[in-house]
Amino acid sequence: MDKRLASIKLNNIRIKDEFWNRYTDLVTAKILPYQWEVLNDRVEDAEPSHCIKNFEIAAGRASGDFYGFVFQDTDLAKWIEAAAYSLAYNEDSKLIEIVDGAIDLIADAQCPDGYINTYFTIKEPEGRFTNLSEGHELYTAGHMMEAAVAYYNVTGKDKFLKVMCKMADLLCDTFYTERYKYAIPGHQEVEIGLIKLYQATGTRKYLDLAKAFIDRRGHKPNHLEEERKREDWKDVFHNPDPFIPEYSQCDEPVRIQKTARGHAVRAVYMYTAMADLAYEYDDKELMLACERLYEDIVNRQMYITGGIGQSGIYERFTVDYDLPNDRNYAETCASIGLALFCRRMAQITHDAKYVDTMERALINTVIAGIAMDGRSFFYVNPLEVWPGNLLPYTSMSHVKPVRQKWFGCACCPPNIARTLASLGEYAVFTGDDSVWVNMYMGEKFDVNIHGAQVNLRLKTHMPFKGYNRITISSDKTVCFYLMLRIPEYADEESVKAMINGKETASVIDKGYLSIRVRIDADNSYACDIKLDFDIPARFVYANSNVRADAGKVAITKGAIVYTMEEADNGANLPSFAVDTKGGITEVWDEELFGGCMVLEVSGTRSENEDTGRESLYGITPPREVPARMRLIPYAYWNNRGEGEMLVWMRRK
Amino acid sequence: MDKRLASIKLNNIRIKDEFWNRYTDLVTAKILPYQWEVLNDRVEDAEPSHCIKNFEIAAGRASGDFYGFVFQDTDLAKWIEAAAYSLAYNEDSKLIEIVDGAIDLIADAQCPDGYINTYFTIKEPEGRFTNLSEGHELYTAGHMMEAAVAYYNVTGKDKFLKVMCKMADLLCDTFYTERYKYAIPGHQEVEIGLIKLYQATGTRKYLDLAKAFIDRRGHKPNHLEEERKREDWKDVFHNPDPFIPEYSQCDEPVRIQKTARGHAVRAVYMYTAMADLAYEYDDKELMLACERLYEDIVNRQMYITGGIGQSGIYERFTVDYDLPNDRNYAETCASIGLALFCRRMAQITHDAKYVDTMERALINTVIAGIAMDGRSFFYVNPLEVWPGNLLPYTSMSHVKPVRQKWFGCACCPPNIARTLASLGEYAVFTGDDSVWVNMYMGEKFDVNIHGAQVNLRLKTHMPFKGYNRITISSDKTVCFYLMLRIPEYADEESVKAMINGKETASVIDKGYLSIRVRIDADNSYACDIKLDFDIPARFVYANSNVRADAGKVAITKGAIVYTMEEADNGANLPSFAVDTKGGITEVWDEELFGGCMVLEVSGTRSENEDTGRESLYGITPPREVPARMRLIPYAYWNNRGEGEMLVWMRRK
Repeated sequence: MDKRLASIKLNNIRIKDEFWNRYTDLVTAKILPYQWEVLNDRVEDAEPSHCIKNFEIAAGRASGDFYGFVFQDTDLAKWIEAAAYSLAYNEDSKLIEIVDGAIDLIADAQCPDGYINTYFTIKEPEGRFTNLSEGHELYTAGHMMEAAVAYYNVTGKDKFLKVMCKMADLLCDTFYTERYKYAIPGHQEVEIGLIKLYQATGTRKYLDLAKAFIDRRGHKPNHLEEERKREDWKDVFHNPDPFIPEYSQCDEPVRIQKTARGHAVRAVYMYTAMADLAYEYDDKELMLACERLYEDIVNRQMYITGGIGQSGIYERFTVDYDLPNDRNYAETCASIGLALFCRRMAQITHDAKYVDTMERALINTVIAGIAMDGRSFFYVNPLEVWPGNLLPYTSMSHVKPVRQKWFGCACCPPNIARTLASLGEYAVFTGDDSVWVNMYMGEKFDVNIHGAQVNLRLKTHMPFKGYNRITISSDKTVCFYLMLRIPEYADEESVKAMINGKETASVIDKGYLSIRVRIDADNSYACDIKLDFDIPARFVYANSNVRADAGKVAITKGAIVYTMEEADNGANLPSFAVDTKGGITEVWDEELFGGCMVLEVSGTRSENEDTGRESLYGITPPREVPARMRLIPYAYWNNRGEGEMLVWMRRK
Repeated sequence: MDKRLASIKLNNIRIKDEFWNRYTDLVTAKILPYQWEVLNDRVEDAEPSHCIKNFEIAAGRASGDFYGFVFQDTDLAKWIEAAAYSLAYNEDSKLIEIVDGAIDLIADAQCPDGYINTYFTIKEPEGRFTNLSEGHELYTAGHMMEAAVAYYNVTGKDKFLKVMCKMADLLCDTFYTERYKYAIPGHQEVEIGLIKLYQATGTRKYLDLAKAFIDRRGHKPNHLEEERKREDWKDVFHNPDPFIPEYSQCDEPVRIQKTARGHAVRAVYMYTAMADLAYEYDDKELMLACERLYEDIVNRQMYITGGIGQSGIYERFTVDYDLPNDRNYAETCASIGLALFCRRMAQITHDAKYVDTMERALINTVIAGIAMDGRSFFYVNPLEVWPGNLLPYTSMSHVKPVRQKWFGCACCPPNIARTLASLGEYAVFTGDDSVWVNMYMGEKFDVNIHGAQVNLRLKTHMPFKGYNRITISSDKTVCFYLMLRIPEYADEESVKAMINGKETASVIDKGYLSIRVRIDADNSYACDIKLDFDIPARFVYANSNVRADAGKVAITKGAIVYTMEEADNGANLPSFAVDTKGGITEVWDEELFGGCMVLEVSGTRSENEDTGRESLYGITPPREVPARMRLIPYAYWNNRGEGEMLVWMRRK
């Protein structure tokens, strides 16, 4: 394998970008303070979190009962992780004080042997590690480890890191004993945490345990089935269904798995760890499994929005080409996990195809998960919504017509926060003598190449226009390759790269245009790069095997999937049909969402032949009346009140 | 209100009809013997019923525990009801012996005070009437009453009738007491049973209790909510959701309900009783409610197949125009209930529009519920099936790709049996001096008019061809009106009625053509009626408000809805698009299903542009290749193995 590319330390990045800042700015200004209030149960109308309270009870600082899901602790973990990332570009002593206070609380809630989990500490002290399929203890530990590493990396403070190392040590002591020699987590995530802990501390046993957890999956007999037969098994989740190995991706060894299956978030968190481990152990078989599973997702089970998990029940993958648009789950967290997996794959393979998918997930489903005011969130991300049929106690009850303030099960909001706060890690990678620009976003990325401090400054009109300008300076004379991603949606003919005003030959390999850059220490030879390409709005068709999209068309512009909304087009969106011969008109709407590229197409709308026709079925075909349709970016939907939404439109 | 029309006593009917006999013959030959084996747990591979065993335990003849759903007794009740009807046209001493034995068993299982219900007798003797929302005691009693009346009507034997009168007396003694003065059944059905018991015995208090149960619905405070607050409430169903008044149609008084709501079977069973009661009490307000609810169903919430209940979860109505084709429930029992309701409405109003709906439900969804071999059954009746995505533990797990042998919850199979065995009650009605032919089916309907024994003999080519011949004779001179339904799908221009070779003026009122008939006692004036009309195969379009059917077309011929099947057309049925300008070709296939009218249309099929294209999304539209499609009656689907099915096809 090639040497893995690295993400840039967030302290060395500043995102200043018209498109992305409307979301990233929310993290510091709105999401972190708001979610802190939520964690402390100080937001009216939102479902209570009880998260801080649980830690206080576990720490002996308060009395009361545990409340919430078994994985309630992860809300605080993801919040701290997001806070840590935000501190990298926004030093905020008040926030540091809050986080340090929270870390003190966590440390106080830790048991003497290192165990930390408020549910089990408060509610089931005897139940530790007895129900790994549902208990989410390892999942929770994984998020706590990620948070600890994030805070250490950004601030250098290691109290939380040490707390989690102690927990990791306990896991290492426990999970090789006879009882646990085939034990695995029911919900993967601890693998990612352990790998990060290893990367931060160099403690190899953490990496080894992550590897063991991956390699044990699919072992027969299955620990998660066997543990249910034990007397000390506790039914913590009260799910009437039997344990389904496929749901937790442990029906067969991961190395031989050919299709993405089961709970989508678990799956992609696991693939993320698998990619890391494949690299760390130079394990080509595991890498092949990653590639195979990736191809299955993107070629057969992924929505055009980068959403995954087609079943509303169990939030899971179903089968290839099954992509229903209205009843699906497509959880925000699953797209976050897909982006995490793709980032690893791109770093290991140096192939931009993974960035294409990562960007698709981030720019559509992940940011669709959050309202433009940063205060309400989607869990479920369908591609077609008719608020009228989203009733409780029906097949559609999991789909919400408007973003929710907070959820009883609140995984998505803090997950979005930590993802937006660490966006720089996705944007630019570095190699030994190379800088890889994946996602064009402004403006500052400082990297170290052969001891030289190299400063990249990006100006871009992405994602709507392929205009990019990069100026590079350095404190030392340095030579390196600048690898510029040419997205799959760029019009190939139009790609034009100029270096200091001179056009360069544009050889594109695995999606990257490679430019040899030399900077003199005195910056006498300033490096100024212009990269232009067209991003035409396009009609997109689904593979004919996708039954749900037969006869339909979607519209994209670059990575952005567009959607019709009731606010622009009136109700009954499926009554519209697009004339693809009519072309797509691009209109910059300065007023809409503070500036938005709107697309317009022509077609028809079906109406009942006689106005007021009452009957459901008749022999007169509906009348087709000419219509003009207006589309906005998918991620922006439902920011103008409740209404219908539709991505895949009928073709005339 | 006009005088209600009556159904003909089944003893005076013989169904001999090419179309219907393939189902009705199954009742005696296959279903009754097979279901008897099931009730006695003697069928391998089928889920155990334990129904007879439960009665044996309750009767003290066997020991053991109750097993099955709380309403398991209804399997036997519906089986006896079906057996009774079958005895009307097929005297079978062996069957009588079995039924009499079962009735002895039931009598032995009755408590001294008249209470009868094996679940509560065996398992929760103290729990009687404490959980009316979920206990299904009154529902079960209702089916037992219906069975008792059926057996009494056909055979004249009254043992079972007396058993159920004793139970009804207990209900009358119980449900006016202080505790129960606002009590209602959670699942309606006892109202129908009580009404039938009144009709058989003349005991007015049974009718009054049925009326009270209807009038109490929607009362605040709601008994079904209040009972949960009592100490003696038993959680018999273990449903984690709270009680939903709407689900049981008791969120508001039935008289003011404007939309069909909640569990579809409960709803239509209730409407059936409401129609009976509206007539019995000359209650015009209640009648208006029936009409309003009927119109809401057929104009806004009914599938073209006569299926109702759009939500896979809770088997319930959702909202107007919400008619998803693949994830719906459309329970067989719900269509049976719709037919029961429509039959009452037609009898009361003399309006054939109700017969149109009744026939639609019976000829499509009800008979789709049973395989042609009589041994497997559909609960759920979607209009679009892709077996590939019907996975357990997903949003589609309620839909089955093939009919099931028997169900743990086995309401549908015996319900189909009793409906098919009593089909004559739907076909022809009588008034004081009129005979109403609703559904044309051969061959013998004997009625009494003003003391004369009038014999109708029908020959018909329905439902595929509108050729009908009726000869009438009588033992006395008699005059009456013969009311011949002209179905809404008959080509109006083509209707031609001849009486003894002479064309009659055809004035159609409320869907019936009225013919004045006079028969002389010596039959010197033989009455020979010919009624012809065309039944063209037609393209049918849904109301534009039905989002799921936008841009789509279905094909019907008469009452029969047609469907594409994979067996005829290959896989990926949504890839086909119909050219409605190409017309519909009718082909009689002598081999298929022992003779079947097949329909053929032309159109195109979408294929990926490059063979083997791997990616999910691309900018090249699919290639449209010419295609010819073959359709069969919806009810016949899935009689040739597992495969895709599709009613609503894309329009080219």
